[in-house]
Amino acid sequence: MPSTFSPTPASIPPKSPRLALRQPKGLPANFQPLNPLQFILRAAEIYPDKLALVHSDVKYPVHYSFAVWCQRIQNLAYALIQAGINPGDRVAVIAPNSPLIADAHHGVLAAQAVPCLINTRLKPSEVAYILDHSASSIILVDHEYTHLLPPTLKVRVIVSNDTGRSGDPYEEFLSSGRAYSQERGWAGLEYNPDENAPATLCYTSGTTGRPKGVVTTLRGSYLAAVANAYESRIHLESTYLWILPMFHAAGWTFPWANVFGFATQITLRTVDYPLIWKHFLNSAVTHYCGAPTVQIGIVNDPAAKRLPRPISAIVAGAAPTASLIASLEKIGIQPIHVYGLTQYGPFTRNFAQPSWASLSPQDRSTFMARQGHPFATAQDARVVHPPKDGDDTLVDVPRDGKTVGEIVTRGNIVMKEYFRDPEATAKAFRGGEIDFYHILHKLIFWSTGSFNTGDLAVIHPDGAIAIVDRSKDIIISGGENASSLAIEQELASHPCVLEVSVVARNHVKWGERPHAFVILRPKSIAKWKGRHDAFEKELKAHAKGRLPGFACPEWVQVVDELPKTSTGKILKVDLRKIVAKL
Amino acid sequence: MPSTFSPTPASIPPKSPRLALRQPKGLPANFQPLNPLQFILRAAEIYPDKLALVHSDVKYPVHYSFAVWCQRIQNLAYALIQAGINPGDRVAVIAPNSPLIADAHHGVLAAQAVPCLINTRLKPSEVAYILDHSASSIILVDHEYTHLLPPTLKVRVIVSNDTGRSGDPYEEFLSSGRAYSQERGWAGLEYNPDENAPATLCYTSGTTGRPKGVVTTLRGSYLAAVANAYESRIHLESTYLWILPMFHAAGWTFPWANVFGFATQITLRTVDYPLIWKHFLNSAVTHYCGAPTVQIGIVNDPAAKRLPRPISAIVAGAAPTASLIASLEKIGIQPIHVYGLTQYGPFTRNFAQPSWASLSPQDRSTFMARQGHPFATAQDARVVHPPKDGDDTLVDVPRDGKTVGEIVTRGNIVMKEYFRDPEATAKAFRGGEIDFYHILHKLIFWSTGSFNTGDLAVIHPDGAIAIVDRSKDIIISGGENASSLAIEQELASHPCVLEVSVVARNHVKWGERPHAFVILRPKSIAKWKGRHDAFEKELKAHAKGRLPGFACPEWVQVVDELPKTSTGKILKVDLRKIVAKL
Repeated sequence: MPSTFSPTPASIPPKSPRLALRQPKGLPANFQPLNPLQFILRAAEIYPDKLALVHSDVKYPVHYSFAVWCQRIQNLAYALIQAGINPGDRVAVIAPNSPLIADAHHGVLAAQAVPCLINTRLKPSEVAYILDHSASSIILVDHEYTHLLPPTLKVRVIVSNDTGRSGDPYEEFLSSGRAYSQERGWAGLEYNPDENAPATLCYTSGTTGRPKGVVTTLRGSYLAAVANAYESRIHLESTYLWILPMFHAAGWTFPWANVFGFATQITLRTVDYPLIWKHFLNSAVTHYCGAPTVQIGIVNDPAAKRLPRPISAIVAGAAPTASLIASLEKIGIQPIHVYGLTQYGPFTRNFAQPSWASLSPQDRSTFMARQGHPFATAQDARVVHPPKDGDDTLVDVPRDGKTVGEIVTRGNIVMKEYFRDPEATAKAFRGGEIDFYHILHKLIFWSTGSFNTGDLAVIHPDGAIAIVDRSKDIIISGGENASSLAIEQELASHPCVLEVSVVARNHVKWGERPHAFVILRPKSIAKWKGRHDAFEKELKAHAKGRLPGFACPEWVQVVDELPKTSTGKILKVDLRKIVAKL
Repeated sequence: MPSTFSPTPASIPPKSPRLALRQPKGLPANFQPLNPLQFILRAAEIYPDKLALVHSDVKYPVHYSFAVWCQRIQNLAYALIQAGINPGDRVAVIAPNSPLIADAHHGVLAAQAVPCLINTRLKPSEVAYILDHSASSIILVDHEYTHLLPPTLKVRVIVSNDTGRSGDPYEEFLSSGRAYSQERGWAGLEYNPDENAPATLCYTSGTTGRPKGVVTTLRGSYLAAVANAYESRIHLESTYLWILPMFHAAGWTFPWANVFGFATQITLRTVDYPLIWKHFLNSAVTHYCGAPTVQIGIVNDPAAKRLPRPISAIVAGAAPTASLIASLEKIGIQPIHVYGLTQYGPFTRNFAQPSWASLSPQDRSTFMARQGHPFATAQDARVVHPPKDGDDTLVDVPRDGKTVGEIVTRGNIVMKEYFRDPEATAKAFRGGEIDFYHILHKLIFWSTGSFNTGDLAVIHPDGAIAIVDRSKDIIISGGENASSLAIEQELASHPCVLEVSVVARNHVKWGERPHAFVILRPKSIAKWKGRHDAFEKELKAHAKGRLPGFACPEWVQVVDELPKTSTGKILKVDLRKIVAKL
């Protein structure tokens, strides 16, 4: 690490007797509310000098040990309390991967407040909506994203210039927190007595309609983080590279999972493939998370080469295609395919079976692309029939790998509610009713039943869930249901295809037929230049041997790029608009 | 595996639609009570055909896949319900490591009942006391231990001949459960709605007074098991050898931790060192648990040699001496030193520090013998001053590695209570008061504060706890407090010493002086035969260079064996009786 950096005086912890928050009164001796905030205190106690957070690819690099980082988190909590933040208040955070947002995942919880993690790729009008809807009481914003803020604001804004040096407004804020603490330390902050209290507030990117605010619980975040550390095997010797934005579903709970595992975290402000490869090759990276679209960028970067040590890639957000899995494995990246939504952390995982070892890479990849079985600390993930004649009882589809149903989930990792939207919350749950229970002198109302993911899937005889499509992604071709995902999986196996997306296009005879949008691999662009007709023919022939007739694409269109949401999901709604005009 | 064995017809699961218990009414969609029973259902769903349980070193070997084992567990639950067992009832289990007791850790929970795990090394009168005090409603007993039962019993007794074959009374019991289930499967059993319900009942071995019944909770057992799997790195490719008796503090929660991790478990009826070495060398063993006394037996067995693959040994029950740690590491056994009591699962762990790598093996071992810091899912472990002038506020001792205090703990892994003994329960907790809370329509009274372990310790500047002794193990020699544990640590470093125990003996001048009982290593017995005086001189000289004068043993006595409790703890109370007569 460069020796030019030393943390601000306020970041240096005192020789502390014990890192523990004030225990709330009245809790039984054998009941501790689950809270992922515990992890940073434990890491700072056990490995105070270990490198915890590295932010190196910026003008002002910083690196914090667990002890120093833990002190900064404490400072943030006190600074928020001094700024008038009360338990349950929302603290908006608008930042790329950087110490600011890493701090917020712990420090805001330490103030018993709720970080509202805002996507930096949104438009100012969307940010304004979220700030207003969440009623955030203060805004922590990175200097590059202040233009997203509305011109007039009634709440305080703290800007981070991402320097970690004295004079930076965020650093001054932390220093003010330290001063305000009067060295009461962690014992001056109270441990949140309610494990069902909100942990984070993240808004869905909502391809249609207003974004909805997903509220997670502390209990769910704790259990999801522990499960992620366990399933991904994150430990003291691990180094995690932040490619996935931390604002995306609270970084899939990895901001806490990494601390639980005592891993070193490296934050990258942007998805910069050459930089990612620099860290892969020089920083002993062992883990990272990313959606398939990012994984495609990684394996196709010119710097990509066989890794000296294997790296585990947690893949979620969409199913990886067989060809992507093969490309990752070829260079030593071991994909761990998990499935989740903003509404909870990773909820299922593809569990490799010993019997797959004897399969061809292609067949094995097909199995690996399935969403699999419930995660370590998740509970039910079921595929059920749609409601019938008003009867909303959950009936599982047969385990035949064919019958399409909807994925529903329940258990500790499921979200608490949509923020200030009881109607959408009620709609999101199925097969239950409103009930209530007492916990710690408080009466809580809640919906029983299961969370309705809106994802369509089959369940295979071995119990593995495999998403076929979201309901609107099914193409009804000649009366048959063709899964656009299954078609994409097959088209992606063509050696010239980098990325592909398939939507339904109206057809006079068949009702609907698949229309494929294809991005060619860089090395194949020249080959097909001016001959897209020939490529179309070749890809159709490729499909014919692999798909039933009704699922073969009727049209193939080569494009330079695909429209994507700010979180990297392909915007099929935009592709449908394009084909509607054809 | 031998092909001569096939499970009984009742053990063969049907092609099941879904392995899930009936969900209790009224639970919120995002709240699932924590319960380690979940693990076996999940393992059977994801890895149905994986080898789960191997019991091979017996006349009738058996081996069960997760699917078959899970069915047997279900059968046990139905059989218990058919036998009239209600939620909360105690089911006594008297068995060595074998499928019977492995089944009970899951199957009794599936009936919402509480396994009362009885030490097979107790006397009939002690067993009678426990059966009576626990008011167990049924007894599951291994055929070799029926003599422990009182001659007249009012409850049903199911004997296992440990054959796994039809005709075995235990197998008939399971078959009756299957018949009674009418193939309702898991859906016919209700999931325990209360995560704070009792999980297990284990009686302390109580060197003085009546044994006390320690009640653990489902929530605590779940979190302890997950932590053990995480900390020990137990995964699909792991094979766990059962040397530690499962009845000992519920096998330190490893009966569930192994299933959480999808590990294969091998059960050994007795601690048989040649057999242990057979499995170490031929069965791909990766993990086992054992107290130091068992570890000493392992490293000193004639079959001991350098292992082809490293094995992780979870060491608890007492601190391993530096010389034991060195002996283990020399042959490729990696010790993981944890600390706990019957009153909870492993609660602290010795966390290795990178800086230790540069230390001499002796110095490193001294650090490794410390009890360390709280475990992954544990909460507080503190060293506090004794109550002062009636004031029971918990005040931490300074982190100076010198000031002796008492270890107190709180958090989810702490026991719930002493069974039917509110007085002992109240005494066991310190620094709190009686409070209450509502959970799921039920009012629960509980003691706040911390559990009082009775173990004396110091806390080092790095926050690591190091036990010096239980209060009665301190030797007050010339007004100085000498730790018998510290003396034992130093004496054990002598090359001729296999095992050593030190107690206080009255001394005219100094008040008390240390008296050491020593077992010589097998290879050193001949050397000192008839010359124990010379050995005494040599060991005293050895001690002189390592210990302050007041802590040097005044007397050294060579013995053939040391008196031990049924769980392998050295009975210092008996040694004190011996020296009292001298």
